[in-house]
Amino acid sequence: MIEIDLLIKSAEELLTLSSSFKDESGLGIVRNGAVAIKEGKILGVGGTDQLLGDFVLGAQGQEVNATGKVVMPGLIDSHTHLIFAGSRESEFEQRIQGLSYLDVAERGGGILSTVEATRKASFDELFSLGKKRLDRMLSKGVTTIEAKSGYGLSLQDELKILNVMKALNEIHPIDIVSTFLGAHTIPKEFRDDRAKYMDLLTEEMMPRVARGKAAEFCDVFCEEKAFTLGESKKILETGKRYGLKPKIHADQLSHGGGAELAAEVGAFSADHLEYVSREGIRKLAEKRVIAVLLPGASFFLSMKKYPPAREMIQEGVCVSLATDLNPGSSMTESLPLIMTMGCTLFKMTPREVIQATTLHAAKSIDRESEIGSLEVGKQADILVLDIPNYRYLPYHFGVDHTEWVIKKGRVVYKNQ
Amino acid sequence: MIEIDLLIKSAEELLTLSSSFKDESGLGIVRNGAVAIKEGKILGVGGTDQLLGDFVLGAQGQEVNATGKVVMPGLIDSHTHLIFAGSRESEFEQRIQGLSYLDVAERGGGILSTVEATRKASFDELFSLGKKRLDRMLSKGVTTIEAKSGYGLSLQDELKILNVMKALNEIHPIDIVSTFLGAHTIPKEFRDDRAKYMDLLTEEMMPRVARGKAAEFCDVFCEEKAFTLGESKKILETGKRYGLKPKIHADQLSHGGGAELAAEVGAFSADHLEYVSREGIRKLAEKRVIAVLLPGASFFLSMKKYPPAREMIQEGVCVSLATDLNPGSSMTESLPLIMTMGCTLFKMTPREVIQATTLHAAKSIDRESEIGSLEVGKQADILVLDIPNYRYLPYHFGVDHTEWVIKKGRVVYKNQ
Repeated sequence: MIEIDLLIKSAEELLTLSSSFKDESGLGIVRNGAVAIKEGKILGVGGTDQLLGDFVLGAQGQEVNATGKVVMPGLIDSHTHLIFAGSRESEFEQRIQGLSYLDVAERGGGILSTVEATRKASFDELFSLGKKRLDRMLSKGVTTIEAKSGYGLSLQDELKILNVMKALNEIHPIDIVSTFLGAHTIPKEFRDDRAKYMDLLTEEMMPRVARGKAAEFCDVFCEEKAFTLGESKKILETGKRYGLKPKIHADQLSHGGGAELAAEVGAFSADHLEYVSREGIRKLAEKRVIAVLLPGASFFLSMKKYPPAREMIQEGVCVSLATDLNPGSSMTESLPLIMTMGCTLFKMTPREVIQATTLHAAKSIDRESEIGSLEVGKQADILVLDIPNYRYLPYHFGVDHTEWVIKKGRVVYKNQ
Repeated sequence: MIEIDLLIKSAEELLTLSSSFKDESGLGIVRNGAVAIKEGKILGVGGTDQLLGDFVLGAQGQEVNATGKVVMPGLIDSHTHLIFAGSRESEFEQRIQGLSYLDVAERGGGILSTVEATRKASFDELFSLGKKRLDRMLSKGVTTIEAKSGYGLSLQDELKILNVMKALNEIHPIDIVSTFLGAHTIPKEFRDDRAKYMDLLTEEMMPRVARGKAAEFCDVFCEEKAFTLGESKKILETGKRYGLKPKIHADQLSHGGGAELAAEVGAFSADHLEYVSREGIRKLAEKRVIAVLLPGASFFLSMKKYPPAREMIQEGVCVSLATDLNPGSSMTESLPLIMTMGCTLFKMTPREVIQATTLHAAKSIDRESEIGSLEVGKQADILVLDIPNYRYLPYHFGVDHTEWVIKKGRVVYKNQ
């Protein structure tokens, strides 16, 4: 008998997301399932009776009875813009009244207005805003997120944002995986000299970010109104030389060859993909680039065109879903709601949206070996939901089902 | 100086929804606003300085400081199917995979499967399910709802549902306005003899419901697969004779003349209206029938066709929005999320979705003289939101902004 710290037992459905547990659902479901945890790691996964024979709770151990509930890996939000100041509800209203996202940007709204507010905000203000957002995410069952800079667009302000993320990562249960998105848009002061901003990005900001280990990934908004395909390639290649792993905002508002570029540079993910080409899909599948789809932005911007999720899945692309939390095009922290939108807008099945926010999301941030499934040796990031089965999670929408959230083996959230 | 029980003061924006306070927004906004409350009623509405001169808190009085927050009438959910047993997440998955709502119904799923589960459920089970749903609604700022029977479809089971609503109304802060929807669909046992079910409805159930004051309104699902225009007219006319006020599920899946019928019988509301005709819109406006639109169902069923909300508003129809909470086509208790969908799907402005869930919703349930706006003499049903301005409410979606909920002058919910 091995002594453990935490036992989760008697789950109606334990979604392991592990291929060791083959079943019809494709989610590796164990009924009457249990998880044994010690020092933050998973020591055992299986039936409750079996685990009760193999493990025993230590004197200080804790037991979570999950009778009638669903237990699954903590949710992973694979694309967020966590740190920003200000809000853009006026633009939201203008868009409803007929202005396009690009119209709004051209009127001096859009990303640049958030850049202005974020530059003005202090470290402490941004920290406090970020913490509130992380708390909301945790209450919805999220245990790891990717977070991008990109509302600073100067060396100093980008570092301020990345340092806020680092500080939040230290004090908050949610793990934050940082991405440098200095290539979010051309800042106002470089509007007439984009070459100079490219130099600043590739010769000053990226080396400095990499040296200080301020970010793990590098991202670029590859789009007509942001960075060209050539510029995007240079940015991602430069990032790679400095050890920053590539990601790309691709084919959101028009087909720009972003997916193809993602495959070419070996990006971990290509994100958005509303206008991805057939060839782009084929290459994403071939090079195992994760497609991170963002139905919250489709919904918030009332987009007529959705990314071809079903076609991507059929072609073997591994699809993740994320909130895209940001003040301009998806103002929400609710990943469960995004899962419902994955179903109703993108026609993904409940199984697919669960994979998309656990195992596939882990792959998109290079954390597959640590999180995203319930397997022996992985980190004990676990969610207990007050729902009768996994299909119920995207079905009953707009309300929270979170009962317990466990991060690295510790209970970090419990619903009253 | 008049003594009061409760003072809400210093609101950043006090949305009165009253024509006494003219302003650009159309919501009757008072800045640095206050509300004075005594014995459950509003005694004063206006600027904080003015009210502090006119009213004084009694010894047991309570003060709510709303600095930096928005204060508005409690939300009213004008169309729900609150009481049902079971859930239909398998159908949700089937629909994503391509089956239509009517396909599912023809396979023995749909409404009739919920009827079966609800008939089997005890009073206590239904009470407990209903209470959980009301608690979720309250936490989102809802203080009054309309609730329909319609999953019983026998005298005994319809009365069971209506009695559960009555019992919940007595113990829960949320007020429930009851609607008899025996004409939801033809029950299985009458499939081959719909005339007989019509007799049961009009000769037994409706008289009995009216006599026992078990419901205030009578509703009918007027649709090819449910009740014909002629049957619907007979049901609503019979209801009126027994003192049941008419409502109608109209033009949801096809144009069936439901809006025109609503105008003809003087219905309080016509609900759904995806396929309403131009003539139907004109008549709704002329007869002041409230259009209750249900974006949750459009979203949940991935409908391509939305009700023409903008056209209705332009033609002078008074539009309300509601959750349509039900297990088949809109499984949510979140009216704030429905407001966001009103904006992004139906192109209603933030102002319009706030009117739609307060004053217009009150009109649709014949409660305009009591609730729906903050005016002297009305019931003190009030919501304090942790948001900087009214546009922010539909903008930041999928998370709760509720800080305090006050029902009949009593604090019934406070966010921790």
